[in-house]
Amino acid sequence: MKKIAFIGSGSFGTALGVTLSKKGYQINMWDRSKETIEDINVKKENIKYLPNIVIPSNVFATCDLKESMDGCSIIVLAVPSHAVREVCKKIKEYVHMDAIIVNIAKGIEVETYKRLSEIIEEEIPNNPVVVLSGPSHAEEVAQDLPTTLVAASKDRQSAIEVQEVFTTSKLRVYTNDDIIGVEIGAAVKNIIALAAGVSDGIGFGDNTKAALMTRGMNEIKRIGVELGARKETFSGLTGVGDLIVTCTSGHSRNRRAGILIGKGYSYEDAAKEIGMVVEGVKACKAFYFLKKDLHVSMPITDALYDVLFNGKDPKYAVYELMTREKKDEIYY
Amino acid sequence: MKKIAFIGSGSFGTALGVTLSKKGYQINMWDRSKETIEDINVKKENIKYLPNIVIPSNVFATCDLKESMDGCSIIVLAVPSHAVREVCKKIKEYVHMDAIIVNIAKGIEVETYKRLSEIIEEEIPNNPVVVLSGPSHAEEVAQDLPTTLVAASKDRQSAIEVQEVFTTSKLRVYTNDDIIGVEIGAAVKNIIALAAGVSDGIGFGDNTKAALMTRGMNEIKRIGVELGARKETFSGLTGVGDLIVTCTSGHSRNRRAGILIGKGYSYEDAAKEIGMVVEGVKACKAFYFLKKDLHVSMPITDALYDVLFNGKDPKYAVYELMTREKKDEIYY
Repeated sequence: MKKIAFIGSGSFGTALGVTLSKKGYQINMWDRSKETIEDINVKKENIKYLPNIVIPSNVFATCDLKESMDGCSIIVLAVPSHAVREVCKKIKEYVHMDAIIVNIAKGIEVETYKRLSEIIEEEIPNNPVVVLSGPSHAEEVAQDLPTTLVAASKDRQSAIEVQEVFTTSKLRVYTNDDIIGVEIGAAVKNIIALAAGVSDGIGFGDNTKAALMTRGMNEIKRIGVELGARKETFSGLTGVGDLIVTCTSGHSRNRRAGILIGKGYSYEDAAKEIGMVVEGVKACKAFYFLKKDLHVSMPITDALYDVLFNGKDPKYAVYELMTREKKDEIYY
Repeated sequence: MKKIAFIGSGSFGTALGVTLSKKGYQINMWDRSKETIEDINVKKENIKYLPNIVIPSNVFATCDLKESMDGCSIIVLAVPSHAVREVCKKIKEYVHMDAIIVNIAKGIEVETYKRLSEIIEEEIPNNPVVVLSGPSHAEEVAQDLPTTLVAASKDRQSAIEVQEVFTTSKLRVYTNDDIIGVEIGAAVKNIIALAAGVSDGIGFGDNTKAALMTRGMNEIKRIGVELGARKETFSGLTGVGDLIVTCTSGHSRNRRAGILIGKGYSYEDAAKEIGMVVEGVKACKAFYFLKKDLHVSMPITDALYDVLFNGKDPKYAVYELMTREKKDEIYY
């Protein structure tokens, strides 16, 4: 039976680890927090990140990287996007030559505009990389509620292997070879979710949010296609599917942070209140400069950037977005 | 100043009537219910369909069709979809030769599979028809929350006129000449919203619903393109935008009916409980047979049809939908 390592014991990593452990795999969770490790090993519950879910006995946690990866044929990177490069540098000496690297973080590197799979390939060049993405709040995955994911890779055989390992009767995994589209959709949707949260926080309604999301989806497509993605990918689970779940669910951290910002919090205070990394803030900064370089129109990203970093009044920003549009409905 | 007639005083008609009256237009609301007319004229509130919204003094209600349409250059059809043909037959003798007919109902004629604008053109052949659609819950329009709509017509000049009349600082109206796409999107999304509600009613999560909506959107596109629509229209406000608002908002009647059905109600009992017409039930019946004739794959429509009319267990239907998919993510 395969052994699978999760590097990082956040909510989504833990939820997937629990799911796979129920299929009988030996799961090793690495984390740097001694408290989290003890919670997993002793209390059999990840109290901080995934409370109220019982962790099976074949899940073992450690803060020793080498130990966590020993004999593992699948290494799941389950850290925030900004930590991916650093973690890759640390783990590469322990990665088995046949192992598949699976990434579940969503974002791009702010300084280089690189997608996370590009970073992983740079740091660990000899192993296949698979991105696992889609509309999948950790809490619901852990509760075995029906969920869909996409395994995207340039290496079809690795994508199929990941699909087989992660599929259960409640977790359906599809394959897709458009890794650019899958990664860009996942990263940019956090910007739109943050903006949707701002609209909710101001007190605007479902009509306003649906308009923002519709225009946001087209913003995602525009930058994605410019970066080499297939347009169709954005009509799939990792595009519109993930956008929907992130913009409308109470589980979404990005949306919850947006609500606080819409109520007048700074992004720093909102992030403190949420207590977890808010990927949309970083993504907004990265894509704001990237789309400028590429001359791609992303008005929601522009507006959110001004709200987050230039002190623009959120209400006025949404008002501007709602009124600046051309009067013919033309979509990309 | 223009006079505008609303044929039907339901929630959306009343919300638009109130919005236009604040721009200074004289609004005539027709309804067959004496009680509603008295509520509007005397209590200045449509208590049954749009409670807690004050109706301005330049809104006048009557049950006399001729009187309601006298001198009106825009006639808004604001009746349930199944009543459109009958109402057209009744009003045609009073329609001024220069008047524009605006339809805000969403659906197709169950017996003929005709779009509502086709029915209006058959019954009132000499007047231009404009369809007004988009993510727009009546309650929020009435509360002046930022909302977007699309005015779709084969006659560009009429679409522009409707755009000018209906646009306010909070209500943004775009034009679109793909009337087929706009009407099909609006009709089929009610099927998906009903199915999304069923998933919610069973107790499934946001992940499940996002997957259903993503696949539902592709179902809408497939049948729409087969019927002559432009694919791009479904990425706009009347496609994915309206789907989002209908599937996720607490205001949505179709979704609320679906929740009850997911909890075990029959569709008849669910409709009784909602107290208003549930367009998705009729749309499901119509599109079930239409897509059969056209050999278009619409698995969610199939599943919902079996739940509504053949006593299939909703939980099993969602389970089948989640597990039948091909394992490659391929979208239309």
